[in-house]
Amino acid sequence: MAQKYTTREEDYSKWYNELVARAELAENSGVRGCMVIKPYGYAIWEKIQAQLDKMFKETGHQNAYFPLFVPKSMFEAEEKNAEGFAKECAVVTHYRLKTDPENPSKLIVDPEAKLEEELIVRPTSEAIIWSTYKNWIQSYRDLPILINQWANVVRWEMRTRIFLRTAEFLWQEGHTAHATKQEAIAESELMLDVYTTFVEQFMAMPVIRGRKTESERFAGADDTYCIEAMMQDGKALQAGTSHFLGQNFAKAFDVKFADKEGKLDYVWATSWGVSTRLMGALIMTHSDDEGLVLPPALAPIQVVIVPIHRTEEELAAITEVVNTIQTDLRALGISVKFDDDDNRRPGWKFAEYEAKGVPVRLAVGPRDLANGVVEVARRDTKEKFAMNIEGIAPEIKQLLDAIQTNLYETSLARRAAGMHTVDSYEEFKTRLEAEGGFYLAHWDGTAETEEKVKKETQATIRCIPLDTPSEPGVCMVTGKPSAGRVVFAKAY
Amino acid sequence: MAQKYTTREEDYSKWYNELVARAELAENSGVRGCMVIKPYGYAIWEKIQAQLDKMFKETGHQNAYFPLFVPKSMFEAEEKNAEGFAKECAVVTHYRLKTDPENPSKLIVDPEAKLEEELIVRPTSEAIIWSTYKNWIQSYRDLPILINQWANVVRWEMRTRIFLRTAEFLWQEGHTAHATKQEAIAESELMLDVYTTFVEQFMAMPVIRGRKTESERFAGADDTYCIEAMMQDGKALQAGTSHFLGQNFAKAFDVKFADKEGKLDYVWATSWGVSTRLMGALIMTHSDDEGLVLPPALAPIQVVIVPIHRTEEELAAITEVVNTIQTDLRALGISVKFDDDDNRRPGWKFAEYEAKGVPVRLAVGPRDLANGVVEVARRDTKEKFAMNIEGIAPEIKQLLDAIQTNLYETSLARRAAGMHTVDSYEEFKTRLEAEGGFYLAHWDGTAETEEKVKKETQATIRCIPLDTPSEPGVCMVTGKPSAGRVVFAKAY
Repeated sequence: MAQKYTTREEDYSKWYNELVARAELAENSGVRGCMVIKPYGYAIWEKIQAQLDKMFKETGHQNAYFPLFVPKSMFEAEEKNAEGFAKECAVVTHYRLKTDPENPSKLIVDPEAKLEEELIVRPTSEAIIWSTYKNWIQSYRDLPILINQWANVVRWEMRTRIFLRTAEFLWQEGHTAHATKQEAIAESELMLDVYTTFVEQFMAMPVIRGRKTESERFAGADDTYCIEAMMQDGKALQAGTSHFLGQNFAKAFDVKFADKEGKLDYVWATSWGVSTRLMGALIMTHSDDEGLVLPPALAPIQVVIVPIHRTEEELAAITEVVNTIQTDLRALGISVKFDDDDNRRPGWKFAEYEAKGVPVRLAVGPRDLANGVVEVARRDTKEKFAMNIEGIAPEIKQLLDAIQTNLYETSLARRAAGMHTVDSYEEFKTRLEAEGGFYLAHWDGTAETEEKVKKETQATIRCIPLDTPSEPGVCMVTGKPSAGRVVFAKAY
Repeated sequence: MAQKYTTREEDYSKWYNELVARAELAENSGVRGCMVIKPYGYAIWEKIQAQLDKMFKETGHQNAYFPLFVPKSMFEAEEKNAEGFAKECAVVTHYRLKTDPENPSKLIVDPEAKLEEELIVRPTSEAIIWSTYKNWIQSYRDLPILINQWANVVRWEMRTRIFLRTAEFLWQEGHTAHATKQEAIAESELMLDVYTTFVEQFMAMPVIRGRKTESERFAGADDTYCIEAMMQDGKALQAGTSHFLGQNFAKAFDVKFADKEGKLDYVWATSWGVSTRLMGALIMTHSDDEGLVLPPALAPIQVVIVPIHRTEEELAAITEVVNTIQTDLRALGISVKFDDDDNRRPGWKFAEYEAKGVPVRLAVGPRDLANGVVEVARRDTKEKFAMNIEGIAPEIKQLLDAIQTNLYETSLARRAAGMHTVDSYEEFKTRLEAEGGFYLAHWDGTAETEEKVKKETQATIRCIPLDTPSEPGVCMVTGKPSAGRVVFAKAY
């Protein structure tokens, strides 16, 4: 009997949690707020990493590695940044355990091994990196520095949720240093473009590109660019951010450079990052009640082949044909798995690979062989049809491309349907509650109004969009002048 | 004027530290015992990672990710393991900082944010992983589990040294679970083979494969296999270990499985790892007084091309030819850099790429072009010779292979010269002091004798070699019977 799973309709949040477990992506660990990323989930993350890493290198960045720990005095140097993260950081205070004198099978913290200065487990690495850059930068010749780091970070969140908000998560953080303000701004915009391209083309997830309001900015940034995606329940998910840090960290760590004329000035900075949160976005954008749906570009297995047979002879005949198909698919760069495990029935396998989001399934039985065809099933549309074995590899490649495109277009259409333009605060409140979704509305530009909306509706300003023409108007809440519409939504 | 660097002869240890800085591999950070791995050093580590990862996957392993933190009660579950790491672990005790009431620009640990249970920053992940495996394993059908993790770990070492011994380091740790003892032993031996192949073929570093004595075993292991390499100063460096963990962790975390007959038994385990320590081994095996020497298989840049020109026209003519050479080299999978930076003179560039260990340097001037040749310089032998531009790419490929082979053979010859067979403890002590190197000697098998030798000479038993036929004899220290020679040496 197939287990009954919660549908999106019934309980979106429960559906998500069950799906993460069912597709074997990750699970909660015995450590509060920390997750175990299971092999199948990690294989998707590796695909994300590989593609982003390639794009970072193509845009001139190099990887490096900086320490996990930040001494407290270094952590507090940039005040806004420190203030922003102080309330949620793991602090190392001791460096040794000893046997509990009252219970020799237990260990206790050795009070004599107290650190002179506490170490913060990095919630982000600006502080440690800029204290390092100080020694690397003397003149304009040392600039720009274009470095990325793949690392784990820790933010002691009180309410955690697998992939979306965990105490420890994996991410990449770029940290660049520049001679001019213009160059740093151009870098932060470039990386927003890189993120947009990656998320739209590989994750098949449309995003709105924008700038954060002052109250939603990264702690320590002069400007935060972001990409915001709409999940199937109409809530927003911030998928990536790119910060123009001005000279804030250079001032905090006294990092100056001599320009061509020998004049000293503080260095300009950016930082930018995406995390395992993208896994949550990927899941919530495409998946359905049968399980995960993966865009082919990020699927660890793009094609699974299931034999349908009664006898060993039938399996042998199927295997022979399948081996050729596999070779041809692999020659086109397609990852394929032939699941001939005899302990599982085809129906079980079908459900399993559906749950795991494998984009294309081929089933091959003796009658198919006789007809020179296989049965193809698309994960995205659930269509099934026969395909000739002769010349199948390029056909499958086209099909994978079509699935990738379809997933993007479906998400785009759903977002369009969930994007509303409103001018009345009453209408905004009513519709937000009833329908969810994104609301393009006028705002007077004050933190007070922003806060009022947040308090009254739980919606935040997700961003001031970059790609829509600015159209002056009046704030839906206060009636004061507004320079243009911003995006309001409830968010993950 | 070129800076004068310390030679190996003058001070091996100082030479190493200077070289790490000079080749821009890494540096000490502002965090005690933690290093910053700089882009060039990290690029070498990425090459190491990529190759090992490929070999792990080819032998059936998958990557996953487990939490950074281990709750104290979980950490202490396997007693020997806990005892082995308790003295050197970073302990998180609090999860929040707050503004110092006496100095509002400073932060202090918030005493109200004390964790109920302290968290240990993982020094190794057996505890957290086996507490997870407990939920993954019910029957023999769930076995084997073949998982690897790329991660950072922390061991609070008192005396640190870049790459060789740092408080935080990067590594991979494999953790496998098996139904039978034989299968687990076979796995730990297989991974020792993988490490041997990688280190010998890619790092060009010959190793002795062996087993550790009981006192040198990993804390919590029943048996530790290792590979030991000889550095240029005659000291040993443990380059990788593979542990047969018996049922120790399964018992500590109560992980049982039902076999085909339904009988319950504890699961058998292995773990195995190599770390950024390999970077230290790589440096100390091949480098010389001019800087780093890299085996082509792990060199981020395999070929550098330096133009020798006076005028823009000369540079244009050189660039045209070089572009063709670059295309041809890249088509053969060779990584190449054309350094036409006009701010640096050729002599500076030569020294720079020598320091960075680039295996092959090509220099091209107008006269070379006229003769249809380039000047080739080998980093390993420092030979220089002309090579025809016509058909140069396959020639360079052969040259890179020859360099790879030469580096291995040179290291092998040096190791052979530094490997001594001794039967008298007096001779051992005298020669160890005078020459360093490895000593094949008889040992009576007791921890007492091992400890005595260590105390009196600082030499430890590096391993009981696997690949030399056992030859009974008498212990060089006590005269008691010995089953075979073991390897004594001073070690990093």
